[in-house]
Amino acid sequence: MNLGRMTDHAGEWLRGTGPQSDIVVSSRVRLARNLAGYPFVNRAASRQRLEVLQRSRQQILEGKLAEDMIWVDINECEPMDRQLLVERHLISRQHAKASDDLPRGVAVGLNESVSIMVNEEDHLRVQVLRSGMQLGEAFEQINHIDDCLEKRLDFAFSKKYGYLTACPTNIGTGIRVSVMMHLPALKLTGEIDKVKRAAKDMHLAVRGMFGEGSDAIGDLFQISNQTTLGRGEQEILADFQHTVVPQIIAYEQQARQALVRQRPALLDDGIWRSWAILNNARLMRTDEVLSLLSQIRLGVTMGRLEKVTMRMLNELFLMTQPAHLQKLMGSDMDPAQRREARATLIRKRLGQS
Amino acid sequence: MNLGRMTDHAGEWLRGTGPQSDIVVSSRVRLARNLAGYPFVNRAASRQRLEVLQRSRQQILEGKLAEDMIWVDINECEPMDRQLLVERHLISRQHAKASDDLPRGVAVGLNESVSIMVNEEDHLRVQVLRSGMQLGEAFEQINHIDDCLEKRLDFAFSKKYGYLTACPTNIGTGIRVSVMMHLPALKLTGEIDKVKRAAKDMHLAVRGMFGEGSDAIGDLFQISNQTTLGRGEQEILADFQHTVVPQIIAYEQQARQALVRQRPALLDDGIWRSWAILNNARLMRTDEVLSLLSQIRLGVTMGRLEKVTMRMLNELFLMTQPAHLQKLMGSDMDPAQRREARATLIRKRLGQS
Repeated sequence: MNLGRMTDHAGEWLRGTGPQSDIVVSSRVRLARNLAGYPFVNRAASRQRLEVLQRSRQQILEGKLAEDMIWVDINECEPMDRQLLVERHLISRQHAKASDDLPRGVAVGLNESVSIMVNEEDHLRVQVLRSGMQLGEAFEQINHIDDCLEKRLDFAFSKKYGYLTACPTNIGTGIRVSVMMHLPALKLTGEIDKVKRAAKDMHLAVRGMFGEGSDAIGDLFQISNQTTLGRGEQEILADFQHTVVPQIIAYEQQARQALVRQRPALLDDGIWRSWAILNNARLMRTDEVLSLLSQIRLGVTMGRLEKVTMRMLNELFLMTQPAHLQKLMGSDMDPAQRREARATLIRKRLGQS
Repeated sequence: MNLGRMTDHAGEWLRGTGPQSDIVVSSRVRLARNLAGYPFVNRAASRQRLEVLQRSRQQILEGKLAEDMIWVDINECEPMDRQLLVERHLISRQHAKASDDLPRGVAVGLNESVSIMVNEEDHLRVQVLRSGMQLGEAFEQINHIDDCLEKRLDFAFSKKYGYLTACPTNIGTGIRVSVMMHLPALKLTGEIDKVKRAAKDMHLAVRGMFGEGSDAIGDLFQISNQTTLGRGEQEILADFQHTVVPQIIAYEQQARQALVRQRPALLDDGIWRSWAILNNARLMRTDEVLSLLSQIRLGVTMGRLEKVTMRMLNELFLMTQPAHLQKLMGSDMDPAQRREARATLIRKRLGQS
């Protein structure tokens, strides 16, 4: 399986376009579904897991759910290709790391907007990713995919509980709605903690870029619903579209304006230091790149730094992550080599911009 | 008392010239002396302290110990002028901060190589500072000054113990010999801890830039003798000239060469990040300036960065310290204002270099 073609562009979630993409990096909806007649993945026998995989793969590919869909057998992938898919948010860390005994895969649409993991925690995990604030569009698309799949596969469903899932937190609609928001001003002013507390009161989860258990790197916060039982999909979606996201956007914008008015030097200090370091460092860790790019992104969206395009930022964001970097350089590198290659790549790309 | 003229040049210890000035920033010798017939400063009555001050000042100024010597009454000085003298290493922090009731002062030679504090811990603290490795020269000059003073003032002396001083650690010769060394490579490789242990075994003290109790900022280490009793001045001096300083210089040079050979990217990373931050930050603390300048200094002496002169570095080193900065800007500033003014000053100066 050659995933090399993926490394030359930034994929869907970092396209940097779409409504309100200055703050909402991407919108994501995912559904958890399980085939009726089979135990959940963690309880199934080898033969059953294989059957789930084969049936699902066939129906997904025949269903033409998205343009030019490709199939990747994860347990036959090189570790670096798995990591590449994680970095592109097409599979979860858990899906990449599971035992080689577990037959599992992912179907990916060519523009990487749609991905369907098979034999992750649930038999099927369908994801639609869109850049910017496009939750409605993502929801429509995933609904369509769900309808198509439902015609071809018999999903485990209870009249009382709704869709049945391996983890009880997903039971009911099996839907998770999330937005990746860039909130550097709220972070800088410390108000992000207030947002986190408010989100918790609304039964929302605030996580880092790579989902559960990951820290918020690069001032990117993934905000998602925690409740799937007893609330309709439309209700959850409407909450996000009309309350949660507009409110957080407003907070971030207020914080940005307050910084410009009250502490412009603090704002510019972060932006210009980041610019300077990216252009001059000789060694660079991934986390640091993300923090620095976050500041540059803020500078560009606020019109305080005009030396770089959003497209370039998004490319660097992805290209400097370990698997992408090694694919791009065409060789396996240890962490020290990567730190040097990463810094060199960034200096070179920014020097051309 | 107008000390304004001091702010337009870097003074003696940061002249950046003299033998081995790539590693030995400055050499310093000081003597502790007390007038016979008076209690030590901390035991003396007000009247006695005033007498000590008046007699000492008169004899120092009439003695023409150094060219164009000026006298500064510290307890009549503005706090900012006191701080200015501390930043120029002409008086100790303790001398600056003592109670206003204590009549005290300092005599300073025009090129700031000689300074004599009166009523600090001892009645007289004579200091000779030279840039680079000039301990021999400093020692000769302080000996000459000591001889001159001894003809004019009767010093407390015991045949058994030598010169008597307020603190027993100074009894005997009353001499302290010290060198300020720039040891960034030993710091970077972690070998500085070995040097510190070795120094301790040799009864040497390793301190920060501002003496006792100060941390090593900007990779500057002050190395001085701790023993004054039972060892001749010549012996202490010879130890420094022929053993201690050459050995530490050799260690630092080895560490620098090892960095160039084995980890050039680590070396350049520190140098170029520092250069970039100094040229782009909008807010800057004193400690950070010193750390960054330390890296630039290393870059310049190792020929890896040629954008700035040593003279400029030394000027920035001093000009960005709180009192110098405020004198230069002509106004009192709170710490936040200073951080902004400091960053602006640095960008402006480096932009001109």
